Amino acid sequence: MSYRSGRHFLQIPGPTNVPDAVLRAMDLPTIDHRGPTFAELGERVLDKVRVVFKTEQPVIIYPASGTGAWEAALVNTLSPGDRVLMSETGHFAALWYQLAKRLGLDPELLPGDWRHGADPEAIARCLAEDEEHRIKAVCVVHNETSTGVTSRIAEVREAIDRISHPALLMVDTISSLGSIDYRHDEWGVDVTIAGSQKGLMLPPGLSFNAISQKALVAAREARLPKAYWCWDDMLGPNANGFFPYTPATNLLYGLDKALDLLLEEGLENVFARHDRHAEATRRAVRAWGLELLCADEREFSSSLTAVLVPEGENADRLRQVILDNFDMSLGAGLSKLQGRVFRIGHLGDFNDLSLMGTLAGVEMGLACAGIPHRQGGVQAAMAYLAEEAEGDQAKAREQRRIA
Amino acid sequence: MSYRSGRHFLQIPGPTNVPDAVLRAMDLPTIDHRGPTFAELGERVLDKVRVVFKTEQPVIIYPASGTGAWEAALVNTLSPGDRVLMSETGHFAALWYQLAKRLGLDPELLPGDWRHGADPEAIARCLAEDEEHRIKAVCVVHNETSTGVTSRIAEVREAIDRISHPALLMVDTISSLGSIDYRHDEWGVDVTIAGSQKGLMLPPGLSFNAISQKALVAAREARLPKAYWCWDDMLGPNANGFFPYTPATNLLYGLDKALDLLLEEGLENVFARHDRHAEATRRAVRAWGLELLCADEREFSSSLTAVLVPEGENADRLRQVILDNFDMSLGAGLSKLQGRVFRIGHLGDFNDLSLMGTLAGVEMGLACAGIPHRQGGVQAAMAYLAEEAEGDQAKAREQRRIA
Amino acid sequence: MSYRSGRHFLQIPGPTNVPDAVLRAMDLPTIDHRGPTFAELGERVLDKVRVVFKTEQPVIIYPASGTGAWEAALVNTLSPGDRVLMSETGHFAALWYQLAKRLGLDPELLPGDWRHGADPEAIARCLAEDEEHRIKAVCVVHNETSTGVTSRIAEVREAIDRISHPALLMVDTISSLGSIDYRHDEWGVDVTIAGSQKGLMLPPGLSFNAISQKALVAAREARLPKAYWCWDDMLGPNANGFFPYTPATNLLYGLDKALDLLLEEGLENVFARHDRHAEATRRAVRAWGLELLCADEREFSSSLTAVLVPEGENADRLRQVILDNFDMSLGAGLSKLQGRVFRIGHLGDFNDLSLMGTLAGVEMGLACAGIPHRQGGVQAAMAYLAEEAEGDQAKAREQRRIA
Amino acid sequence: MSYRSGRHFLQIPGPTNVPDAVLRAMDLPTIDHRGPTFAELGERVLDKVRVVFKTEQPVIIYPASGTGAWEAALVNTLSPGDRVLMSETGHFAALWYQLAKRLGLDPELLPGDWRHGADPEAIARCLAEDEEHRIKAVCVVHNETSTGVTSRIAEVREAIDRISHPALLMVDTISSLGSIDYRHDEWGVDVTIAGSQKGLMLPPGLSFNAISQKALVAAREARLPKAYWCWDDMLGPNANGFFPYTPATNLLYGLDKALDLLLEEGLENVFARHDRHAEATRRAVRAWGLELLCADEREFSSSLTAVLVPEGENADRLRQVILDNFDMSLGAGLSKLQGRVFRIGHLGDFNDLSLMGTLAGVEMGLACAGIPHRQGGVQAAMAYLAEEAEGDQAKAREQRRIA
Repeated sequence: MSYRSGRHFLQIPGPTNVPDAVLRAMDLPTIDHRGPTFAELGERVLDKVRVVFKTEQPVIIYPASGTGAWEAALVNTLSPGDRVLMSETGHFAALWYQLAKRLGLDPELLPGDWRHGADPEAIARCLAEDEEHRIKAVCVVHNETSTGVTSRIAEVREAIDRISHPALLMVDTISSLGSIDYRHDEWGVDVTIAGSQKGLMLPPGLSFNAISQKALVAAREARLPKAYWCWDDMLGPNANGFFPYTPATNLLYGLDKALDLLLEEGLENVFARHDRHAEATRRAVRAWGLELLCADEREFSSSLTAVLVPEGENADRLRQVILDNFDMSLGAGLSKLQGRVFRIGHLGDFNDLSLMGTLAGVEMGLACAGIPHRQGGVQAAMAYLAEEAEGDQAKAREQRRIA
Repeated sequence: MSYRSGRHFLQIPGPTNVPDAVLRAMDLPTIDHRGPTFAELGERVLDKVRVVFKTEQPVIIYPASGTGAWEAALVNTLSPGDRVLMSETGHFAALWYQLAKRLGLDPELLPGDWRHGADPEAIARCLAEDEEHRIKAVCVVHNETSTGVTSRIAEVREAIDRISHPALLMVDTISSLGSIDYRHDEWGVDVTIAGSQKGLMLPPGLSFNAISQKALVAAREARLPKAYWCWDDMLGPNANGFFPYTPATNLLYGLDKALDLLLEEGLENVFARHDRHAEATRRAVRAWGLELLCADEREFSSSLTAVLVPEGENADRLRQVILDNFDMSLGAGLSKLQGRVFRIGHLGDFNDLSLMGTLAGVEMGLACAGIPHRQGGVQAAMAYLAEEAEGDQAKAREQRRIA
Repeated sequence: MSYRSGRHFLQIPGPTNVPDAVLRAMDLPTIDHRGPTFAELGERVLDKVRVVFKTEQPVIIYPASGTGAWEAALVNTLSPGDRVLMSETGHFAALWYQLAKRLGLDPELLPGDWRHGADPEAIARCLAEDEEHRIKAVCVVHNETSTGVTSRIAEVREAIDRISHPALLMVDTISSLGSIDYRHDEWGVDVTIAGSQKGLMLPPGLSFNAISQKALVAAREARLPKAYWCWDDMLGPNANGFFPYTPATNLLYGLDKALDLLLEEGLENVFARHDRHAEATRRAVRAWGLELLCADEREFSSSLTAVLVPEGENADRLRQVILDNFDMSLGAGLSKLQGRVFRIGHLGDFNDLSLMGTLAGVEMGLACAGIPHRQGGVQAAMAYLAEEAEGDQAKAREQRRIA
Repeated sequence: MSYRSGRHFLQIPGPTNVPDAVLRAMDLPTIDHRGPTFAELGERVLDKVRVVFKTEQPVIIYPASGTGAWEAALVNTLSPGDRVLMSETGHFAALWYQLAKRLGLDPELLPGDWRHGADPEAIARCLAEDEEHRIKAVCVVHNETSTGVTSRIAEVREAIDRISHPALLMVDTISSLGSIDYRHDEWGVDVTIAGSQKGLMLPPGLSFNAISQKALVAAREARLPKAYWCWDDMLGPNANGFFPYTPATNLLYGLDKALDLLLEEGLENVFARHDRHAEATRRAVRAWGLELLCADEREFSSSLTAVLVPEGENADRLRQVILDNFDMSLGAGLSKLQGRVFRIGHLGDFNDLSLMGTLAGVEMGLACAGIPHRQGGVQAAMAYLAEEAEGDQAKAREQRRIA
């Protein structure tokens, strides 16, 4: 493809824009993964990464995509034929369900309309009926990347606790970790699945399992075959900063740097930034007269926004027009949403002006593609961001006055 | 300074945004500047760079800033006390004038109001009066970076020719080369001065003199002392791809790559892109109800736009608000324009959505800073860019129809 | 660890030294893994990588370490309880055997002394006894990274064919691919396992399965559970340059570049270079009066050399002395070889002078550590390399004379 | 040129090998050179760089090669026709002399044989004869890059002081700064000239003037024309971390990092390392039976070693053989030394094993080129380095025993 001036706008909901400092950290020479310099790196990243999960418990790092971390969560804790309750929040929840079936589990998919998060009450009902405790795990996608809907994990936890069901709680945070508030320990999650290429602002190639003590106990009895994914093999060497097989050293360099950046910005500031950009995006969408896919405002995602195109229009054509004319990649509608929605990623290394470029690309794309809409989305987003910025200034002035 | 998420918007009129591919090209190991691999590099860049100047004649590359190339142009061609006619187009023209004085020349500054380009008629009048041909050179800044005004070099040439004055024509293209159409040979320029950090999309550190045969002849008699800047020392080794002293090797790697990108995009496409972004910016400025500094539409700059703030407002405060809130750098008003204008750079590695982010940053900044303006600048720019994009699509369809 | 001047010598047998051009290729921004630019990249690397395996058949690329590719080879082709014949060539062969057991297979380990390659005759005998064809696969490590011994795969193939046994042949080329001649198609290998971090000159994080038609047929009946590793899921999207889940994009950028470099040097030249460096290393070892671990000269490895320290000496202390004093990492003796051998990696991006620095580090380290040896190893290696270089010169002269 | 495996050995006496961390620091996006982030960078490097010069006085940083810093030293302090005393230590001293002449000065070249440093007594004699104090400056090259001879600056200072001559002392440290002990303040040097591409471990493109108070006083009266090089213009903005014209921002990023590395290693350790590598090199040269160009052991250079080839042999052919066969660049003999010497650079980012690779390349090259020599140079260097390493170990043990 011939050269196009300026930076491509990568506004799919992951992989996300990687900070320059992270890319540079990754391109240093690979080192001996069994030497003392590596041990320092290993200890450092294994320690720091836990902050992002809000956990004091072990986090496993795989040289693998997020799909591998899904598999790891299941094969380490479950046995052939085990019952697993999964919430159909969208395409990725459905893929995880398929994966569980292929591994020889017996998953049940709680049906969903792909416009809502996991329903805590429906989960509670299923568990309540399961008097013999045949259900060994409840699996929920925290932020469904295909729909832009965030499930309420704390409420799911509360639902499980209310009926004292012993099932493990497993949560996919692939597109929420480092973007949307998430609390592995406080919410009593047993296995949290994550990947490098979204809120962690890294290229793809690393994935994660954060593990509770209860999950470690379950792992002792689990009989699904496993080798590459085996937690036990990891935990031993990890204690000294090492890995049982060759780790993806250069991606770990990047993780080291990316965690520094996230912690320097401050996790709560990171979440607030994503919330602000998501709200600005929704205001633009409403101003355009388009419909948000997410149907419940309690479940709006702060990392991406999925937008329905008007009946009869094709979202993929719109995406193509935008890519051709404005060099921006947006997320496609997946499986049953194909052509019906486009998805705007506003997560990772991102700021107000990048968002404005993004929304301008969408508004101009709607015009070029001839999709019925009202102007004013960009204007509405600007009004909101300027107001928020003024609020910050006022707050800063107030603080100076007091001090 | 603590980490700020997302890319900084560097929208000063240079240094400009450097393409990732150029930065990567520059960070390879330095090589022997007297070896065969270097010779290939040297020949390649010395050859390719001439295309950007639209010249068949030699181009000298200095390891120096643009100021050095100003000095080089003068010391190679002139003698102590020589008369030089310079047009006061703005801050940089005035600096060049100061530099000429300090080097022992006798420059005359044709006064200007910093809102117009060099006046070909005024130059013609001066030359006509100079019957003894004491004026040895006419110096014009093609694109005055401090004002966003582009001088009409072809008309200056025509004016000189009309009265058959033998003065050399020297043109500063520091902020126009690679952004605005420029023709060293066709316009009969004797020395063209340029720098790396603007349209050439490189970091600062290289500067250029493109030289006519007439300038080379003049150089033989020139008596200003010179060593570092001496053309003669350069031309010999340059013939084989070498340099008389250690060149800035890694910046030459970058130049090699940047030239490839410019030629791949096509110079005429590069100019059209800058024209389009400049027009979009001006539409935004007018929609805001603000005044353009450039007073003559024939002289609008395609690489930057200088905007007057309303009487009583401070452009530097606006820039500070924008930097603090939206992480964007804009150009300041220089010397007598300080606080009166801000300058939007839209040159170098840039695209429609980056421009929209830029203009949104200005519009939100105007709001945050409480500067009286109308909304709608971003909207106007979007309307124009979308229309242009549709035009491109229509043109492409038409071409397919014919073919 | 505080700064040490100069480049670290990474002379473990992998990860290897990564060329600067590959590191730079990897640190470009991540792109949309579902967009057209990615499709071009995917098609290009999936196509080019086959050249290195010397195959026309499909090659699968995993975002995973080599251990994952071992697992992938087994779970795609075999069913629980299947018999697998494995040759105990060293530590890694033993690890693969353990992995097979953990996956629910019934592997048999043909015992070895860790100083020889797989014994084609022993394999033939086992297969001949297996009249019911219960053995479904024969697994051999081409180049045993723990011992520096290369198995003769063509002879293993010939042994299997001789008795017309239908078992699949699976070969681990993790530390030979791109360093030692290997022929997936010609040798009739069914699954070849490889990794990115050795001869391919990349950081760790990618691994490979090259697959025969026979293996694909076997895969249809295989009943080991699989999801992440499933070939079928890969082959569909791969046809268009895509992947079923997020690929490790930036490592693929690196692979694209690394393959270009390997093919530019020419595979046969790459092999000859590794052969030459291995021979130089062995001459040094013999001159030092030390013993090579590899006991059969037909099986000398060209990618690494394992060296026995004299009885009573500790190879790990030697390695530590060398790391502390000369900033070079060497490979440790693994499991039963711990402390008995050290391993010199001479594979990947490497040249004569780097080898000489490496061997000088060993010779000086032997002196510093007080390990009994004779001087002259470096001298012997230099004599050999200089002679080879002269031979090249003579050959070049001869060719010019003829032409 | 087609791909050659492994890292090129860049063993010319500059540009030197640039640490990976410095290259990576340089390839971050350029920033606004008039913004607050730049000011922090500017202040940091202007402050830290003084440590390397061992001065508390101002250091000027030019976007230019070392030749520019030569010119800057002269034009800032002298007037047309001023007498300057220069010592002919070799090619670069002669070039500096030519440059002085071209700038309109009246330099006198104290003749030398290109095998000795500047002669303090000869300088003293000249100054003693200059009763009218017509000599305004004494110019000495600290480390003559063309010969590998280091002049004794402290003795030159002492000679000037002895006869109380008011001439300025100007010293070129282009190939010594950051490699060989140098003390701007203690030795009372008035202008120290330096460049980025040698001991500072940067690519070429920056050069330096460190300035005494006496030089600043002299600058007030100096009448050579100047603009680009003018100290005064620099000192004002430098006080706040800024520069009068666009600085070479990305090279300053590299300088920032390189200074951190030098200070982390510790200047005295840096000097000891260069001394050790130079001594090892000389032992190799003597073992080969070749002659060192430097004739006085008090003046051996620690940054490079120039070696005479036997009468009748051509050093340039040797260098070509080494480049072709072993991918190493060595320095050529310059002007009257052309073909007579080759120069081994052992400065910058370098370590013991890189030196051993370098010396092995020379020894093998001598063999391939058929130049009469004895074997054993590499062996002699190894013996010395191993002994030094053992000494370090013993010292460390001793320190532990005491503690």
